Amino acid sequence: MKKVGVALLGLGTVGGGTYRILKSMHDDIMASDGVDIEIRRIIERDVAKAEALGVDPALLSTDINDVISDPEIKIVAEFFGGIEPARSFLIASLKAGKSIVTANKEMFSKCMEDLKAAAIEGNAGLYFEASCVGGVPVIRALTESMQGNRIDSIMGIVNGTTNYILTKMADEGLEYADVLKEAQRLGYAEANPSADVDGFDSMYKLSILSTLCFRKHVPLDKIYREGISKISKTDIEYGKRFGYTLKLLAIGKLTHGKIEARVHPAFILNSNPLASVKGSFNAVLIHGNNVDDVMLYGRGAGDLPTGSAIVSDIVYAAVQDKHKLFNYSSDVSDEDFADDFTSEYYVRMTVKDKAGVLAKIAAAFGKYGVSINSVQQQAEDGKASIIFMIHRTSEAALKKAATETESLNDVISVDTIIRVI
Amino acid sequence: MKKVGVALLGLGTVGGGTYRILKSMHDDIMASDGVDIEIRRIIERDVAKAEALGVDPALLSTDINDVISDPEIKIVAEFFGGIEPARSFLIASLKAGKSIVTANKEMFSKCMEDLKAAAIEGNAGLYFEASCVGGVPVIRALTESMQGNRIDSIMGIVNGTTNYILTKMADEGLEYADVLKEAQRLGYAEANPSADVDGFDSMYKLSILSTLCFRKHVPLDKIYREGISKISKTDIEYGKRFGYTLKLLAIGKLTHGKIEARVHPAFILNSNPLASVKGSFNAVLIHGNNVDDVMLYGRGAGDLPTGSAIVSDIVYAAVQDKHKLFNYSSDVSDEDFADDFTSEYYVRMTVKDKAGVLAKIAAAFGKYGVSINSVQQQAEDGKASIIFMIHRTSEAALKKAATETESLNDVISVDTIIRVI
Repeated sequence: MKKVGVALLGLGTVGGGTYRILKSMHDDIMASDGVDIEIRRIIERDVAKAEALGVDPALLSTDINDVISDPEIKIVAEFFGGIEPARSFLIASLKAGKSIVTANKEMFSKCMEDLKAAAIEGNAGLYFEASCVGGVPVIRALTESMQGNRIDSIMGIVNGTTNYILTKMADEGLEYADVLKEAQRLGYAEANPSADVDGFDSMYKLSILSTLCFRKHVPLDKIYREGISKISKTDIEYGKRFGYTLKLLAIGKLTHGKIEARVHPAFILNSNPLASVKGSFNAVLIHGNNVDDVMLYGRGAGDLPTGSAIVSDIVYAAVQDKHKLFNYSSDVSDEDFADDFTSEYYVRMTVKDKAGVLAKIAAAFGKYGVSINSVQQQAEDGKASIIFMIHRTSEAALKKAATETESLNDVISVDTIIRVI
Repeated sequence: MKKVGVALLGLGTVGGGTYRILKSMHDDIMASDGVDIEIRRIIERDVAKAEALGVDPALLSTDINDVISDPEIKIVAEFFGGIEPARSFLIASLKAGKSIVTANKEMFSKCMEDLKAAAIEGNAGLYFEASCVGGVPVIRALTESMQGNRIDSIMGIVNGTTNYILTKMADEGLEYADVLKEAQRLGYAEANPSADVDGFDSMYKLSILSTLCFRKHVPLDKIYREGISKISKTDIEYGKRFGYTLKLLAIGKLTHGKIEARVHPAFILNSNPLASVKGSFNAVLIHGNNVDDVMLYGRGAGDLPTGSAIVSDIVYAAVQDKHKLFNYSSDVSDEDFADDFTSEYYVRMTVKDKAGVLAKIAAAFGKYGVSINSVQQQAEDGKASIIFMIHRTSEAALKKAATETESLNDVISVDTIIRVI
């Protein structure tokens, strides 16, 4: 039987999960896939972590050269997180002919091009199923199951923390700050939650996913990003009345040959299959020209779900005799990306409760070609909340219209603008 | 570039879709996957069909030997449907070292063992992504994405015709017979609808899927099968009141080491992600011990969605230098399968509207350990409809209790028994 040596870089949450799965599933994998996966080295400073997992101390090292110099190690799985030393270690591994497996979306999205070059140099494989949406096999679906399609859109809930927060706000009528605090207490959100709530994590994943979908490198600076920290329960409540659920979406689209990539909160119709994705679950909806809609749903994070994706990549890499690199164009320019996009919108503002205000706002909107679909008004204490549902228009026009509206005398504030999918 | 010759057996709906995709995506596939897929032969008697698709007449043949004898043909994709001649042609192809691709679930589920033996003999590959749930990449997910899991259950809506009928009955309050008639008129159901509505199609797919999940051959005669033709809108309405949606499910489960495989209508909670799968869409929910729940959703049928799965298999097979056969045990006996299963139940009966009936029924249930969770009663014209929701019990006990209940003097009929998931 084919024996394949593996090194694990780090024994954090996902590294630990991967270790446990490789141990418990070792014989199953031999039986089903015909490979004997042997953990030959683990790079980890924290001996206590290793002990807690029952790791043989002889496997531990803090020196990456113990990995690079071992010719029996064919696959290096990385769990450090962050850019360095993950990037350098993986590039050295690839150049030495070792395939890499990673869940590190930040590093992968930022260093995709360097990793690809090193993989070509070392004739090794790049595996990153675990970097996007944890245990959900979306990378394999894009690379090995949709080859007969041109993909024109991908839309996903790819961050569990924010989906947990938004679900709880909606189900229990709570405010953002209160739910965030509870999520932090329960360990669902980090002490510094910015990577999740400001959409960075979703942006990293969208960069990877849209590069695969559109076969052109989609760098981070081409992705519009907006987080959920300004969402109020008021908006979620109003959305419900219109039949919408609020989600933080990662959206990649090919429109007239140009790539649109954006991460932002959005109202989606309750009938959209993404609307029923609750709590920390994730899902990705992909549209191909032949297959139509495909949705993949599952756990986007966690030691065992993400470890399951890492193990799947390790087995997949171990079985291959040669590694196929996913083919995308690195040669992209501004011309490949849309500089604006269109959407429907939900706009909530606070105005003085007097006659004629609505007409003035409508006039300001009209000046930029922004057309109102419906209006709901609720007056209280001389002020009124107005909710506008806006017909499809360009983001640029909507923003200009909103700025002009806000400068009107009778408009106290434009409180929220949420795109409607 | 690697050039791979392909033969298509038949140009029906899916065969035609496959032809169109292979033509339109030829250059895309070269760019992304590095293989030049060449259609070298098409077995089709109906020249008009071929002409309508713009097929080069020189490719047409009615003799399978034109395929077998061409050493450049490495992959044979079959679209005949039915058992013969599909089975014989594919076995001959495999023995000649040609990998096969098929969407033919009936043939594949019935002839899996023969095909496997021929594939081993010819050192060729067996690809059948399109046989289960059309464009949804469930086979690849099971074989290439969940290797780090023991799968303990699979539950799916795997037949679009029945899901269309049940969705329409629920949404529009219509009776089965009326919706079926309309579905036939629209071409969503066959003139003889039995393969779909009696659950045969779902059973074929479940045989294939549960064999992959549990790595043991699950033959058709080990699958319990019940269709939707006895479902009335009354039951769907009552289910709604309890918060349930009715679906025709294919269920495979590993319980105490024994395989349970069954196809039947079932009430599922509206919060179950399968409940929101509407119309002709399909979905499969898989549970792995590490990854937890994964759901895959998409179009289960149609020329282009199923053609997309066929093309994915063709490209996948073309890229491989050697073919990995999925490893499952053929050596199964009755011991591997559960002879009973447990479920919660919905039972509707019609009784005489007089005092004491409920007590008698409860006593008959109790005799078999069947315990009632809730009762709803609606009286009209001296008769009453009673709906029992039954706590988890064994199917065998429930059926005995129902038979005994039906023999009671005051019970007019036990109208419906529906499992509740």
